[in-house]
Amino acid sequence: MEERIYLSMLLSTYGSLLTEKQVNVMKLYYDDDLSMPEIAEINNTTRQAIHDLIKRCHKMLLGYEDKLKLVDKYNRNENIKKNLKDKLCILKSKISDENNAKLIDDIEKNINSL
Amino acid sequence: MEERIYLSMLLSTYGSLLTEKQVNVMKLYYDDDLSMPEIAEINNTTRQAIHDLIKRCHKMLLGYEDKLKLVDKYNRNENIKKNLKDKLCILKSKISDENNAKLIDDIEKNINSL
Repeated sequence: MEERIYLSMLLSTYGSLLTEKQVNVMKLYYDDDLSMPEIAEINNTTRQAIHDLIKRCHKMLLGYEDKLKLVDKYNRNENIKKNLKDKLCILKSKISDENNAKLIDDIEKNINSL
Repeated sequence: MEERIYLSMLLSTYGSLLTEKQVNVMKLYYDDDLSMPEIAEINNTTRQAIHDLIKRCHKMLLGYEDKLKLVDKYNRNENIKKNLKDKLCILKSKISDENNAKLIDDIEKNINSL
C-alpha cells in the first residue's frame, strides 16, 4: 500500500487518540496533500514546528498500529468479507427457492454491517 | 456486564498499550482476583502504590474504550456473527444439494475467522 494511503488509514483509525490540533495538521498533510509551509501558514506557526508535529504523530500512529494492529485486522477482515460475499453470490446463483434467496440477501446485509 | 468481566475485556483489548508491570498487576487484580495487599507483597511494594496503579490503569483503559470503542464493537460483531450463523443453519436445513451444503460450511468457517 502507498505510504500516504496507509498513513491516512492509520489516522482515521487512531485519530481519536491524538489531540484535535494534531489530527487537523495530519489531515491537511496526508488527506489534503498540503505542503508543510502551507500548513504552517494556516496554523500561524513555523515550518519546523509542523515538521516536528507530523514526525511525532507519524511515530505515534505507527506505534499504535504496532501494538493494536487494527488496520491490519481491518484489511484482513475486508478480504474475508469479500470472499464471503463471493461465495454467497455463487450459492444464490444455484438456488431457485425464493425464500432461501431472501435469506441469503439477509445474510449479505449482516456481513456488510460487520 | 459485571464490572470485573468488563475490565478483563478492556485489559485483554488494550493491554498492549500499558507497560508490562501495569498489565501484570491488573491481571492479578482483575483476572486472578488477588487482593491489593497480596499484589503489593508479590511486587515488593505498598498497598497504596498498587491502589494508585490500578486506579490509574482503570482510568486509562476506560479512556481508550471511550475513544476507540473496540470492546463495544467486538460485542456488537459477536452478536451479528451469532445471528449470521443462525441464518446459515436455517438455510442449510432447507438445502438438499450436497455441494451447496459444503459451500455453506465454507461460509461458516469464513465467519468464524472474522
